[in-house]
Amino acid sequence: MAIPLPVMVSSLKGQVSIAFPSKKPAPPPLLCQKSQAELEILKLATRRKVITRVLSERNEFMASIITDLNIEEEQEMEEIEEEMRAKTESDNNERRIAESWRKIHGEDDWIGMLDPMDPLLRFELIRYGEMAQACYDGFDFDPFSKYCGSCRFNRRRFFERLGMTSLGYEVSRYIYATSNINLPNFFMTSRWPKVWSRNANWIGYVAVSNDETSVRLGRRDITIAWRGTVTRLEWIADLMDYLRPVSSDKIPCPDPSVKVESGFLDVYTDKNKNCRFCKYSAREQILTEVRRLIQQYPNEELSITITGHSLGAALAVLSAYDIVETGLNLTEDGRSVPVNVFSFSGPRVGNLRFKERLEGLGVKVLRVVNVHDTVTKVPGLFFNEHVPEFLQKMADGLPWCYSHVGVELALDHKNSPFLKDTNDPTNFHNLEAHLHLLDGYHGKGKRFVLSTKRDIALVNKAADFLKDHHLVPPFWRQDENKGMVRNYEGRWVQPERPKLDDHISANWF
Amino acid sequence: MAIPLPVMVSSLKGQVSIAFPSKKPAPPPLLCQKSQAELEILKLATRRKVITRVLSERNEFMASIITDLNIEEEQEMEEIEEEMRAKTESDNNERRIAESWRKIHGEDDWIGMLDPMDPLLRFELIRYGEMAQACYDGFDFDPFSKYCGSCRFNRRRFFERLGMTSLGYEVSRYIYATSNINLPNFFMTSRWPKVWSRNANWIGYVAVSNDETSVRLGRRDITIAWRGTVTRLEWIADLMDYLRPVSSDKIPCPDPSVKVESGFLDVYTDKNKNCRFCKYSAREQILTEVRRLIQQYPNEELSITITGHSLGAALAVLSAYDIVETGLNLTEDGRSVPVNVFSFSGPRVGNLRFKERLEGLGVKVLRVVNVHDTVTKVPGLFFNEHVPEFLQKMADGLPWCYSHVGVELALDHKNSPFLKDTNDPTNFHNLEAHLHLLDGYHGKGKRFVLSTKRDIALVNKAADFLKDHHLVPPFWRQDENKGMVRNYEGRWVQPERPKLDDHISANWF
Repeated sequence: MAIPLPVMVSSLKGQVSIAFPSKKPAPPPLLCQKSQAELEILKLATRRKVITRVLSERNEFMASIITDLNIEEEQEMEEIEEEMRAKTESDNNERRIAESWRKIHGEDDWIGMLDPMDPLLRFELIRYGEMAQACYDGFDFDPFSKYCGSCRFNRRRFFERLGMTSLGYEVSRYIYATSNINLPNFFMTSRWPKVWSRNANWIGYVAVSNDETSVRLGRRDITIAWRGTVTRLEWIADLMDYLRPVSSDKIPCPDPSVKVESGFLDVYTDKNKNCRFCKYSAREQILTEVRRLIQQYPNEELSITITGHSLGAALAVLSAYDIVETGLNLTEDGRSVPVNVFSFSGPRVGNLRFKERLEGLGVKVLRVVNVHDTVTKVPGLFFNEHVPEFLQKMADGLPWCYSHVGVELALDHKNSPFLKDTNDPTNFHNLEAHLHLLDGYHGKGKRFVLSTKRDIALVNKAADFLKDHHLVPPFWRQDENKGMVRNYEGRWVQPERPKLDDHISANWF
Repeated sequence: MAIPLPVMVSSLKGQVSIAFPSKKPAPPPLLCQKSQAELEILKLATRRKVITRVLSERNEFMASIITDLNIEEEQEMEEIEEEMRAKTESDNNERRIAESWRKIHGEDDWIGMLDPMDPLLRFELIRYGEMAQACYDGFDFDPFSKYCGSCRFNRRRFFERLGMTSLGYEVSRYIYATSNINLPNFFMTSRWPKVWSRNANWIGYVAVSNDETSVRLGRRDITIAWRGTVTRLEWIADLMDYLRPVSSDKIPCPDPSVKVESGFLDVYTDKNKNCRFCKYSAREQILTEVRRLIQQYPNEELSITITGHSLGAALAVLSAYDIVETGLNLTEDGRSVPVNVFSFSGPRVGNLRFKERLEGLGVKVLRVVNVHDTVTKVPGLFFNEHVPEFLQKMADGLPWCYSHVGVELALDHKNSPFLKDTNDPTNFHNLEAHLHLLDGYHGKGKRFVLSTKRDIALVNKAADFLKDHHLVPPFWRQDENKGMVRNYEGRWVQPERPKLDDHISANWF
């Protein structure tokens, strides 16, 4: 049997003693035998010990950071070369954007740019698609969150929190809509009693390119991005299939036969006087903001690019039309700021007269769709732009004859070898899947080849669409512990958000 | 109209120029106009710029850490007082544990300690319950993970990663079982083709108290914790309700009428020669480890405490019996190390003869149950310890007469005002709910009052059981992005685990 060796036994009270391990370890000294003075000393000793521990932990932490940083530095240097190559390529793209942005923006109705697919247009479509996707990634749709229905991030750090700093835009305003309307399956409400708002939902944002990006883009770009539905398609069932004149909702159109789907008009124009987030309608919020921004950059070349997915695509078309119809895109010196829409998986919005009026006003719409998606077939499943025009004209008095607008870029998810065969219509409608399809699209009948290094894992962020062998879990985008954090007491709580929004006033008219 | 002010325009190529904003921003210089030498200079400039940016980001990062640390320091100092008070209280508890651990360990069959509930016993039951809970919190049960069925953490950092460093134990061995047996609904397998193992599941661990903790506990404690089922109760349906002599599986029992449920015996003794994780059975793994540990601490007071929840509780009882039956708890100098089980929501394990043999060998079992839980009523729903003893003896030849062992501590979730009224049997069976019930339990018919600051939010970690007004989301324990991380290329991937385990060999016999 081994001879017992002395071991250092350090008790919690800061004392260190030498003990010989015996059958039973020595009991620690009893507190009750100490005098008050000794107690005070013990207290101080403990205090010192805790501080020492804290400091030592800090030092270790700092040391580990420095080590990490050194390793990172080497890697970073190696990556610089690669980065420079990519930068040169992307710079070339960007310089070409500065030169040809008007064509990309639809000046010539994208004639000759879709087949074969123009690489610059693809690049830009993905970029704006990612700005629409940001509306989903930033949205708090957890019904068990106190902030369900709001944006998860502060406006000023929106792109930063989404890892999109390199985009070079700043969010200038968040857009809210009132949820008390006829599309109950579109809006999210918290199940908790105490919530940030019972009436409002965050529905998008207005962003502006910063100085550096504006140089690269050849103009100062104002982007409006509209959020769609989170994953479910139930909201389609809520569409009333009922057209209403836009002029009935104070959009100043001289022609009362210009009509759009009643539900979209509701989301766009409804408000709630008692809610600080939606006492102005979404319409009023964006018109106010667009006017403010146009006045802020009086001597610059400007563009207005509106994007959105699903119901957000409908709002993109509607708001683009409204901005031009209202004449808000005219500068003080009489220039007309071009307004364009890049829409993804959008439903039909209005009737044939709406389409004619919109296009007559010079609003350019490029609609990216997946041919298997049902959402782009509603409303107006039977009476639509495919019906002979004389019939459309005849049916124009009827409330259910809809027409798509602009130019369509039709993709087909069955062409991507990365996607699995599913029957889930939410997959066909998924925005990330569309961006993946764009990345591989080179023209009708052309082979699907990814043209950038765009990460295919993004497809499964909120879907189960990638083939299994890519080893990407379905629906993988989630917060650690549903956003719960430990507070100073060590308890798990939902953190408060210090400030929900900071500019909800200001009226445009 | 305002006079345009000059602005600094810095292009991506590291040049800074002064420009007057005009209607159209100045186009960036064209790369093709540069000579090769200029290109090299540009390259170097970019490199310098990137490094400068990296360094500046680092400095900002370090500065922000230092600020954070200063704020933390103040808070920490404030918390020291509170910590000291808590420490004193917990020290007092611990000193009393060192003095009375044999009673808590069941020396006197917990007579007089359960009603009213002994605070020290409650403290210890929660502590061991949390060690059983760690088997769930550490388990990778995501079928889309490459490591599904394994432990999420490296053995050496197990408690650290679970925020349980203050427990003062070290995991000395992980336990694996083969999943190719008759309890298909118990084991988890990955849906991916490439996995860490097709045959093994991590099923628990052996841990030892460190020197400091051993002083506090009054002995060196060897804890074995067994994992149960993740949330579903389907595995109950797989129980064959068939008793098998333990001696048939080489547990050296002289009495062939000592029988246990066949399924539990399978999990405990089956192995798979072709798998590096389960080429030894769970039984062989723990017996090897227990023998090694007893030899490692030859001159110390020791205890063996076995804990587990659900099926883990059955394995706890079975392994406790086995260790004593095999004589593994005897030291070289002839002392007998006390073996005890703290089980949670455990089913019946064996027949009356098993119970008699186990108790005759001096194994002390305290079973914490919720009276509404069905799992503790199986197997042996009809023939069990409630049947008159003569009938049990008569039925002893039959394969379906089971008996609970040890002492029961019956809790009732309906007594907790924090829990909502549900009909979900998985809630009644949930381990975190049991720990919450223990915290408020003071004796039969006594009012439910939480005795510690134990966080009630833990109840909803993997359940929907707390009343809504506590604002704790159901099933909130989850990894950020399902464990996906961005690799050096910026792609989202499942990270590889550098080393799955480090001691799978060593045979005990």
